Amino acid sequence: MPIPQALEALSSLLGDRFTRSKPDLEAHGQSEAHFTPCPPDGVAYPETTQEVAKIVQICASERCPVVGYGAGTSLEAQAMATQGGIAVDFGRMNKVLEVNAEDMDVRVQPGVTREDLNTELRATGLFFPVDPGANASLGGMAATRASGTTAVRYGTMRDNVLGTQTVLADGRIIRTGTRARKSSAGYDLTGLLVGSEGTLGLMTELTLRLHGQPEAISAAICGFDTIRNAVECVMATIQMGIPMARIEFLDEDCVEAVNAQSTLNMPLQPHLMVEFHGSDSGVAEQAERFGEIAADFGGEGFKWSSRPEERNALWEARHRAYWSVLALRPGADGVVTDMCVPISRLADAVEETRADIAASTLRGPIIGHVGDGNFHALLLVEPGNRAEMDEALNLSGRMAERALAMGGTVTGEHGVGLGKRKYMRAEHGDGWDAMGQIKQALDPHNILNPGKLVPGN
Amino acid sequence: MPIPQALEALSSLLGDRFTRSKPDLEAHGQSEAHFTPCPPDGVAYPETTQEVAKIVQICASERCPVVGYGAGTSLEAQAMATQGGIAVDFGRMNKVLEVNAEDMDVRVQPGVTREDLNTELRATGLFFPVDPGANASLGGMAATRASGTTAVRYGTMRDNVLGTQTVLADGRIIRTGTRARKSSAGYDLTGLLVGSEGTLGLMTELTLRLHGQPEAISAAICGFDTIRNAVECVMATIQMGIPMARIEFLDEDCVEAVNAQSTLNMPLQPHLMVEFHGSDSGVAEQAERFGEIAADFGGEGFKWSSRPEERNALWEARHRAYWSVLALRPGADGVVTDMCVPISRLADAVEETRADIAASTLRGPIIGHVGDGNFHALLLVEPGNRAEMDEALNLSGRMAERALAMGGTVTGEHGVGLGKRKYMRAEHGDGWDAMGQIKQALDPHNILNPGKLVPGN
Repeated sequence: MPIPQALEALSSLLGDRFTRSKPDLEAHGQSEAHFTPCPPDGVAYPETTQEVAKIVQICASERCPVVGYGAGTSLEAQAMATQGGIAVDFGRMNKVLEVNAEDMDVRVQPGVTREDLNTELRATGLFFPVDPGANASLGGMAATRASGTTAVRYGTMRDNVLGTQTVLADGRIIRTGTRARKSSAGYDLTGLLVGSEGTLGLMTELTLRLHGQPEAISAAICGFDTIRNAVECVMATIQMGIPMARIEFLDEDCVEAVNAQSTLNMPLQPHLMVEFHGSDSGVAEQAERFGEIAADFGGEGFKWSSRPEERNALWEARHRAYWSVLALRPGADGVVTDMCVPISRLADAVEETRADIAASTLRGPIIGHVGDGNFHALLLVEPGNRAEMDEALNLSGRMAERALAMGGTVTGEHGVGLGKRKYMRAEHGDGWDAMGQIKQALDPHNILNPGKLVPGN
Repeated sequence: MPIPQALEALSSLLGDRFTRSKPDLEAHGQSEAHFTPCPPDGVAYPETTQEVAKIVQICASERCPVVGYGAGTSLEAQAMATQGGIAVDFGRMNKVLEVNAEDMDVRVQPGVTREDLNTELRATGLFFPVDPGANASLGGMAATRASGTTAVRYGTMRDNVLGTQTVLADGRIIRTGTRARKSSAGYDLTGLLVGSEGTLGLMTELTLRLHGQPEAISAAICGFDTIRNAVECVMATIQMGIPMARIEFLDEDCVEAVNAQSTLNMPLQPHLMVEFHGSDSGVAEQAERFGEIAADFGGEGFKWSSRPEERNALWEARHRAYWSVLALRPGADGVVTDMCVPISRLADAVEETRADIAASTLRGPIIGHVGDGNFHALLLVEPGNRAEMDEALNLSGRMAERALAMGGTVTGEHGVGLGKRKYMRAEHGDGWDAMGQIKQALDPHNILNPGKLVPGN
């Protein structure tokens, strides 16, 4: 057990920016989700890339696990130090380093949150679109390949990270990517790091793609008789090439939850919430065409608005949906699922999932980024009730199997972490071993977030 | 030298689909560019993934190099068997396996060319947008991370390959990616293979993202007094968020070459060729707004047209530009360069390159996908004239250095191959070693396209 030497060396490197206080360890051993807490042995708060490199060097020489930590908002406990070791908390590396408005990119430290970045960008006419709901850190979002409501238009973190500065498992500092918009110069290391959940390196800087704030934005809401009609409306909208900025589905249960915590007063039926970005006339045209498609599928009460206060009320309600659903059963824990299928299978996927939940003893409203084929059921479980938790995990497991049977993925945007690792073999087959070979090559002593993502360890 | 056993085993596996005829070897030892021919020892024409796996197994056990071969249109000799061995020609694996119109994706074998795919898709209302000019194979385009005129709107191969079936260096067959639009399930192996130039695996199937054929298309052409005005017009257009489908720059020299081989009759000055995709009213609005921006930069003779025959004449002339430039100096060889910089540096990059070529003894028209910050000089060299070739390579080297000094990349879309490997250390630093570690992990005997892309070997 060589960790004591690592702890001592980190303490003399970082002084009071390395802590072993119980509250700090406990805070870094929790997760937003239902996993059993598991505190690290120490928490480091580096301020520079050089310090991160030194932390990793110390841990490498002592074979001590190193786990990156952002805002603590991940839903699959990616940042939990399940084999002990050091949490590297990027909270002090939270500076926006360089805004290149002409090139529409920005260089940030990983601890900057997406809301802080957008606040800082406000005067530039640019914004960073990836929006997972939570005010996550950008480093964490990159590490889990996050996306959210706007991915249907602006892509996921895969599409919006242009480059990184990364500390590898032996402490080497590399730069990946360039500031050019494209490149054919060798392996896409940036793309490999995005979604690697801290198992291949610790990203200490990100270069992100920005987008112009749209000239006009309008939003709309529309109710449907059935889940199938709502989802088929989404499929038709995507296939017509209408460039939706957001297109979100809420089932009847979710509508009930959101109504209770907002002023939206939606009729109790499945709904779509949509947003259009573009020029004034472009937005009007998109809204009109979407309205026509919605009417074809029996959409009711369609109205759109460009008034910021109405839009904000809508998306604030959407972003609070997780908490609104939890409030349906006060005190409950949420088990959040995350399946993603080809658009053509989406109606089947949602209907089958809805029926499966209905046949259980649990309540589980469904909400989703349906333009991507991605949706979540939020299963409400009484804390400490083992039977309910088992039922929730069984439902979640059947969703994962359903996703794979339909040609989809067991996780659209939450990542692998602790909850989805057991499905990696089913999703990737021998490809999972190839991931393991890459991990072994870049982290031969398995110090970076051990026990996660790849086979073995 | 164990290759003879491999040749024998391949011959008995494939019969007359394995050849060692001189014309066949020579045909597979050539490149479109200026590199010295270098024939393989044999050419295999597999028809199935299983056959590719068996070929690789044979070559692995005999330590015989294996080099994938598509349409032979790459510009950096990626498919040249510089250490001998077997060319795996995908010409017989040229089937479109499955069109999923509802999901807007398609599964193809790697030997399908982009033009053949689009012909097959015509009735579906969908198309595959990536357009490098040449009628390249889709497998080759994926392997080199190709792009071209439409990347500014639709992205590169990185953005449009959803998944692959790939034969690894030990003959294992893996599937990467799913048919879902996004996933957070582990390392992005698809993204790692795209651009790996056959050094990590042979892709035997691709799942590609399709796009809806735009309701309306219009194209326009516009002349400018100076290179800087033309390029600054591009920068302003991109920054205004106008969703250009194509935006191409031709310098005065290139205009002269294109005029001589087309009916375009452009005034002898720098030009932009642009295309807009969208609804009827959207296209009209985009064209109008682009026209206003062009006027701000002194653009002259701006006119736009939705007439297909005019558009086709324009883009056919653009696609033939390489041959038109070669015709400026009959019999000349072309040395094609490929730098890509952040948009803010594009005017500097083009001007400095123009001046550098003007100070040389060579002619080198410049043409580029300027919306991406990517442009090419086509340097015309007398075959066998060593001094001219050295001068061309020096110019090309200075372009690469200029790209790096400006935060860009030495290759925007042509890939590394033989010509750009010498700049990999400068572009990637220690990241190049990380690429080598990945290669070593997945291909420990270095049989897949040895001598390319990574350090050492």
